[in-house]
Amino acid sequence: MFDKNYLLPDAALQKVLDALGTVEPATERLGLEDVFGRVLAQEIFSAEDLPGFDRSTVDGYAVNSADTFGARETMPAYLQLKHEIMMGEEPLFALEKGAAAKIPTGGMLPLGADSVVMLEHVQQAAGGLIEVLHSVAPFENVIRKGDDIAASSLVLQKGTRLKPQDVGALAGIGITEIDVFRQPVVSIISTGDEIVPASEQLRPGHVRDINSYALAGLIQQHGAIPARRGIFRDEYETIKTAVSDALLDSDMVLITGGTSAGTKDMASAIINDIGKPGVLFHGVSLKPGKPMIGAVVNGKSVFGLPGHPAATVVCFNIFIKPILHKLCGLSNASYGGNSVSAVMSKSIASSAGREDHIRVSLEVKDGALRATPVLGKSGLITTLVKADGIVIIPSTKLGLEAGEKVTVSLF
Amino acid sequence: MFDKNYLLPDAALQKVLDALGTVEPATERLGLEDVFGRVLAQEIFSAEDLPGFDRSTVDGYAVNSADTFGARETMPAYLQLKHEIMMGEEPLFALEKGAAAKIPTGGMLPLGADSVVMLEHVQQAAGGLIEVLHSVAPFENVIRKGDDIAASSLVLQKGTRLKPQDVGALAGIGITEIDVFRQPVVSIISTGDEIVPASEQLRPGHVRDINSYALAGLIQQHGAIPARRGIFRDEYETIKTAVSDALLDSDMVLITGGTSAGTKDMASAIINDIGKPGVLFHGVSLKPGKPMIGAVVNGKSVFGLPGHPAATVVCFNIFIKPILHKLCGLSNASYGGNSVSAVMSKSIASSAGREDHIRVSLEVKDGALRATPVLGKSGLITTLVKADGIVIIPSTKLGLEAGEKVTVSLF
Repeated sequence: MFDKNYLLPDAALQKVLDALGTVEPATERLGLEDVFGRVLAQEIFSAEDLPGFDRSTVDGYAVNSADTFGARETMPAYLQLKHEIMMGEEPLFALEKGAAAKIPTGGMLPLGADSVVMLEHVQQAAGGLIEVLHSVAPFENVIRKGDDIAASSLVLQKGTRLKPQDVGALAGIGITEIDVFRQPVVSIISTGDEIVPASEQLRPGHVRDINSYALAGLIQQHGAIPARRGIFRDEYETIKTAVSDALLDSDMVLITGGTSAGTKDMASAIINDIGKPGVLFHGVSLKPGKPMIGAVVNGKSVFGLPGHPAATVVCFNIFIKPILHKLCGLSNASYGGNSVSAVMSKSIASSAGREDHIRVSLEVKDGALRATPVLGKSGLITTLVKADGIVIIPSTKLGLEAGEKVTVSLF
Repeated sequence: MFDKNYLLPDAALQKVLDALGTVEPATERLGLEDVFGRVLAQEIFSAEDLPGFDRSTVDGYAVNSADTFGARETMPAYLQLKHEIMMGEEPLFALEKGAAAKIPTGGMLPLGADSVVMLEHVQQAAGGLIEVLHSVAPFENVIRKGDDIAASSLVLQKGTRLKPQDVGALAGIGITEIDVFRQPVVSIISTGDEIVPASEQLRPGHVRDINSYALAGLIQQHGAIPARRGIFRDEYETIKTAVSDALLDSDMVLITGGTSAGTKDMASAIINDIGKPGVLFHGVSLKPGKPMIGAVVNGKSVFGLPGHPAATVVCFNIFIKPILHKLCGLSNASYGGNSVSAVMSKSIASSAGREDHIRVSLEVKDGALRATPVLGKSGLITTLVKADGIVIIPSTKLGLEAGEKVTVSLF
């Protein structure tokens, strides 16, 4: 039977995290084309300055700023236009005092120049001279060598999930191959004598395997690789062999199905039979998701998920997502993205001492985002299809009032 | 030169959307294993009921509810225990009046039963009888045939980006192959005589190609396929050929680089030279991103992006993301996910009449999320690497005050 004193979800998760301890995932070396979204397994220092030279940020004239001090429209500074700098070329001269060089945006400043006067602030004059109508300060309109990234500086930290701009920065400093963490492989073992493959013609009393497909999507969504290992009969040795085999070539094992207490007890016994420390919690103060099993076996996490689809998705988000992030090697903080604020459109009750995860649909009404509970048993997959996200009622609250402000974690 | 009367970003985008008109992307047929995150190109109706039979949601006894009416602990109802229903098996009997059948969670109710009494509410009695200690209502503890999905009902709408639970629902009704929209291909053409490949040793005056890598990541992030077509010299015929070739085998073309007005004018002329209606806006009231070009050529969108990395990312989010969603076939509403509320940690000024997109970093301080502007020229890729997201100052505002509440769109 289930524990009598159920833990709250956070405490239950912590037991698994503690038992897993420090995880250092394996790494692989990939080219820049393939690293978007992957997790960096090394620190990145730059070997060089970016940019590698003082660079103009405007179309104009490279000058020595001191030659322009005091210049204004009524009293321009006159400079000798002696050079033109071409894009992508190194100026092979030093700018003399009192001289100017035409330069495009992105062009390289010559020696002797420290700033650029914008095209719009210059007039042509006779005798190869230009009139500078506004003074410029030192380094005005210039990105200096190393301004973006200085040589030897830390550019990206280990454990960062690489964003598009991070990949751009790597390209900018000429790093075209990096070490990233391998994506963890998560095995999904479907159990239940009533479960048949999605492709099969149904006989009365049977239902198709829904959860392994939903779980595979969730696993992909969080940067891991799902391995759907098939549907196994509710027999001790069959499931024990399936779980043992899965542990050999995956980083985490999920057992789905077996909604009843008897089946769960068998899953629990099997896990304890395979290795240590075994089951860490069986049953949790959560709705939906009460019959959840969390375990660690020989350094790998094993979860027994409730058979109901809604409970499966809720339990994935609470228990499996944080463990997956650890197995992915992620170390950077997340700022709770993928959630929105909304106002409850109706009241909903909850029991004290239990954390309730309510599926809600969203709609904009009178300019505000309103969240409406999607009612229905947790066994119905369509409650999840119709919902846009989840609202949590903490164990200390007895419900939510209509009009109350809530945070919706979006699917 | 740029337009004198710049449009605001929304109006500029609308011109491209209007010129593109209705887009019906091509489709492909895929197995369920490969459709997570793809966009549905058909409506999905169910051919059958889910579940296909009345199903128990608890471990207990299938009964005719009328036989339990009035039952309570002090006056139990006595029923004859005559059958046991096995998981995944069709009961080949009809339940007689006054009888009960043992049934597991998920088991199929026999004919004659309309409800299930929970195991906990039953005691064994002598003579093959059970004592029912609580009455049950009709259909209590039962998911009825078709409760989740009724035969012939619409399950998923065309244009939906498939979530994990949507794939689960498809499996549940036995649909294992579906039509999804093909992912659009977006070509990236890098231009600029100073730009060299990321792998190349730098000479003075040269910089590496940052933007094509950042853009490729952004394109993937939004469900499309990037094609980095290389770096082309700033010559009319070279770029014209590159853009024309790209239009032949991609759904959208991005031209990046060429930060100066002269280069942009050339890009504009080339686009108008290739086809109609050509350039729809050139220059927009936006910082960073002013020199943006938006065009439609022969039914495909072409954008000229500012060369500065920060401007590239801002312009991608404003202009390219909505067009990509259209090319992906997406039609379902988005509820502004991937954003968080925060409080400005310092004031920042803006110019009226222009939309400012400010890069900010986030940190939790005194329990609140605080957004701090990441200062630095838009040419610096590290301003994006250090930032967590973007805050928009609308064209009607002169800035943001310290302490002001803002919405941060996360990267």
